Amino acid sequence: MTNTGRLLISCPDRPGIVASLAHFLYERNANITHSDQHSSDPSGGVFFMRIQFEMEGLTERFDALQREFADVAKRFEMKWRMERAAKLKRLAVLVSREEHCLLELIWQQRSGDLKAEIAMVIGNHKSLGQVAEQYNLPFYHVDVKANNKSEAEKRIQELISGNVDAIILARYMQILSSDFIKPWEYRIINIHHSFLPAFVGAKPYQQAYDRGVKLIGATAHYVTTDLDAGPIIEQDVHRVDHRHDPEDLRRIGRQIERVVLARAVSWHVEDKILVLGNKTVVFA
Amino acid sequence: MTNTGRLLISCPDRPGIVASLAHFLYERNANITHSDQHSSDPSGGVFFMRIQFEMEGLTERFDALQREFADVAKRFEMKWRMERAAKLKRLAVLVSREEHCLLELIWQQRSGDLKAEIAMVIGNHKSLGQVAEQYNLPFYHVDVKANNKSEAEKRIQELISGNVDAIILARYMQILSSDFIKPWEYRIINIHHSFLPAFVGAKPYQQAYDRGVKLIGATAHYVTTDLDAGPIIEQDVHRVDHRHDPEDLRRIGRQIERVVLARAVSWHVEDKILVLGNKTVVFA
Amino acid sequence: MTNTGRLLISCPDRPGIVASLAHFLYERNANITHSDQHSSDPSGGVFFMRIQFEMEGLTERFDALQREFADVAKRFEMKWRMERAAKLKRLAVLVSREEHCLLELIWQQRSGDLKAEIAMVIGNHKSLGQVAEQYNLPFYHVDVKANNKSEAEKRIQELISGNVDAIILARYMQILSSDFIKPWEYRIINIHHSFLPAFVGAKPYQQAYDRGVKLIGATAHYVTTDLDAGPIIEQDVHRVDHRHDPEDLRRIGRQIERVVLARAVSWHVEDKILVLGNKTVVFA
Amino acid sequence: MTNTGRLLISCPDRPGIVASLAHFLYERNANITHSDQHSSDPSGGVFFMRIQFEMEGLTERFDALQREFADVAKRFEMKWRMERAAKLKRLAVLVSREEHCLLELIWQQRSGDLKAEIAMVIGNHKSLGQVAEQYNLPFYHVDVKANNKSEAEKRIQELISGNVDAIILARYMQILSSDFIKPWEYRIINIHHSFLPAFVGAKPYQQAYDRGVKLIGATAHYVTTDLDAGPIIEQDVHRVDHRHDPEDLRRIGRQIERVVLARAVSWHVEDKILVLGNKTVVFA
Repeated sequence: MTNTGRLLISCPDRPGIVASLAHFLYERNANITHSDQHSSDPSGGVFFMRIQFEMEGLTERFDALQREFADVAKRFEMKWRMERAAKLKRLAVLVSREEHCLLELIWQQRSGDLKAEIAMVIGNHKSLGQVAEQYNLPFYHVDVKANNKSEAEKRIQELISGNVDAIILARYMQILSSDFIKPWEYRIINIHHSFLPAFVGAKPYQQAYDRGVKLIGATAHYVTTDLDAGPIIEQDVHRVDHRHDPEDLRRIGRQIERVVLARAVSWHVEDKILVLGNKTVVFA
Repeated sequence: MTNTGRLLISCPDRPGIVASLAHFLYERNANITHSDQHSSDPSGGVFFMRIQFEMEGLTERFDALQREFADVAKRFEMKWRMERAAKLKRLAVLVSREEHCLLELIWQQRSGDLKAEIAMVIGNHKSLGQVAEQYNLPFYHVDVKANNKSEAEKRIQELISGNVDAIILARYMQILSSDFIKPWEYRIINIHHSFLPAFVGAKPYQQAYDRGVKLIGATAHYVTTDLDAGPIIEQDVHRVDHRHDPEDLRRIGRQIERVVLARAVSWHVEDKILVLGNKTVVFA
Repeated sequence: MTNTGRLLISCPDRPGIVASLAHFLYERNANITHSDQHSSDPSGGVFFMRIQFEMEGLTERFDALQREFADVAKRFEMKWRMERAAKLKRLAVLVSREEHCLLELIWQQRSGDLKAEIAMVIGNHKSLGQVAEQYNLPFYHVDVKANNKSEAEKRIQELISGNVDAIILARYMQILSSDFIKPWEYRIINIHHSFLPAFVGAKPYQQAYDRGVKLIGATAHYVTTDLDAGPIIEQDVHRVDHRHDPEDLRRIGRQIERVVLARAVSWHVEDKILVLGNKTVVFA
Repeated sequence: MTNTGRLLISCPDRPGIVASLAHFLYERNANITHSDQHSSDPSGGVFFMRIQFEMEGLTERFDALQREFADVAKRFEMKWRMERAAKLKRLAVLVSREEHCLLELIWQQRSGDLKAEIAMVIGNHKSLGQVAEQYNLPFYHVDVKANNKSEAEKRIQELISGNVDAIILARYMQILSSDFIKPWEYRIINIHHSFLPAFVGAKPYQQAYDRGVKLIGATAHYVTTDLDAGPIIEQDVHRVDHRHDPEDLRRIGRQIERVVLARAVSWHVEDKILVLGNKTVVFA
């Protein structure tokens, strides 16, 4: 996949965008292997596109290609980025005590299903240090207490700065501050253990049990400064019934959480997600 | 199914309930063909049971059987009811303008999947009169306006009184008053066009669209005096994505609504639902 | 949708196809609102594309547009067709005794979900004549017996010739001859009541019951001269268990059949399906 | 769960079975906490029942309880077994090179979701020795070649004899001989990587790809001497489309396989499965 490039754009919709993009790549002997597009509104909306292409010598030509594309982008007022598939994204996985989401990410990464590098695991408890160690992943314990929250976040910031491309909250039970979140906009993914927007906040499985729902779910979303309200990336549900107590719901829920999170992370690292307002466009 | 009986009970959990029920039926030459039980809490909770049995000459023996069972029931402080499968429940289907839920109920009734009789269709608009007529169902138009609500409900009450066993709100867009609802407790089923408790209230598909969820759903529930908060009977969901606009969500939603409602009504008329507090026990 | 056009192409994959198509449409002031592409194999495979576009005055310009496009098509050795969304496809629905698939198509057509016209219903039994009549659809009874098969097919051929665009076998229990099928290649859709290729042939629900499967399904496919082996368009399944007897499987199956068939027909009439060898590419 | 017992029976159906069982347990102060029953045919079929009960001092009374129950069992010609929930079943997991199913079983066992002990891992390749070691599980490498098959099976037999209660084939790519299988009837579980009976035999994902199915699946079943034809315990499917090549199918399939296998093993070790002929009754 050395020669595989990805181009993501969004811009005001108007005629000629696809023609210009296709022409730009064709002139440079790039072959479009996948492309997806979406218009938020055919008349006067926002146009989104993801193009995957193959180009000989992409690694060497990549900087030049970006400079050249900037001209096209300017003409159409595009927000855009170009990525090389071969440059795997590096992840910091933040955890607390529950291991299932971390294990899933590790397992999928090892099997080649998750095309990323797990750069480090950071825990506010020591519990999962052993899991990280078992798989030769650096583990850092950053204790978070009521009175040291900003120091703890500063410590995390130091660990990840310049070292990772995205932060995955794999059942990390701390709320990050707005100051921490802002520079990482749309690069922090959280797994919430309910079908949002049902059961926002604490103890969602207990809430689900109390309401007597027949399906429970999990939601992976980008973290914004508005708790549990960031753009939803993926959701799934599982059937439950009167025989399930809150502990059963948590058990079943773990299966949904790990799968939903892994799917969301996978799409993120393969540059398949664009954000518009508070929604995602996922070219899965 | 002339000889098929159903016994539904709930009572404080304690040893010996099953033995007593089984003994009662065995003595009377009844053969248990299905049985389901559930304890809300093994120690000191509520015990639920549904038994389906076959008994020669059930129709003739039914009244006596109920009198005799009252003794067993008293001993265990049971809430209970006994039903004959052959006595089909009669339904009043309340509608407004959308036909999909009504059509589904009619179709399933005709095909024998819904074991009930549709006694009448009542609409607060005239639009669906033709559908009812096509299938030879009595249709009554009961106009509901801001200033005639209680009269309208009185009219509905007259139409159904002594004539139906349950009321199905098949996309009926009026809110029933508490006075109307109370005597029909757990015998009115509504289909709400969202995955409750997400998107309570009006325009749930628009709400779902605005929040950018990846699954939309529908919820069938018993109607209580607390709007959209009654015991949930059944829910289901369908995957959507960024390509779907609110109109698409409504279209996909219609498919979920009709299936979820039909399933809930089917369980109700086959006496498969028990209610505990604000939850249902469904022995599907 | 008067100005909505659709262009479907398949051709040997090579650089420049997208650029040429996009340029062709851009020059003519057509705005691409949706596009989907697929390559069976990035190097040396077959390239598939479906483009939906908006163009002022499409109805008047349509013939010229097709002539002009023929040049582009020739250069890339394309198989192609261009369609106007406003020109609804006309369907002949063939039935036997079971009504559920027919009713589903009628219902979805009436609600606007199925964008087609039902030109006629043809039954080899008279049973569903009443259903067709109820919805003001022409019904023709064409009896099929062992000794009059070719005459019967000739009669059907006369009824549909020049009058319909596609044939839907909505639980039509007769096998069509190769001679009948050939001129309608990829324009006859059948619903098979199993998850193909499991349970080919007769009585699939009984076969499923005997094998003790935990999911039953249905398959919509294009009819080819090879029985039950044509390109699969859509499949779905539903969970069953030991409590379900063959009659239950048939009942549950009916729900899957009608939904799967309706989805397949919907994709067909919106020109969302391309065929490669014995497989479909569905741009749903 | 020291006091939790399970009773599984099957016998010719006739009146009085439930009453006798319930009476037997009630006399001994056992409280029935769950019960499930099924009749293969209400008149003259086979009756199946699973009862879970709580009884003070079960461990001490267990042998006597079984002796006493033998009388009841004899009267009704029951096949039966009684189990203590506290006595976890011991598993031998047989593997080849693929780790996903093994990892899933280990993970679920560690988290408490799989209520069993993994007694050992046996591989016909050395590849997964490291995984077993990491989790402190005994690993045995038993090479299987064309000319040493019976010796290899003898070696496996020695390792497991008297030491395990069930054998799990977690993507074990060898076919076991009839001689090996027979003494372990309904105690060997295999995961087949297709939706059986579609795609029996080798390379099912390639077969699925070639046929162009829209759903792929996995099947957990008891191993009998008839290859891929034993009683099905559980199945599930996942949607695929034209964009997925055989490698994608294998990747998606791995996710289904591990979940389906873990579910089947879980039901087996909790004594939730009864077998009738070539089918399972699963009281999940």
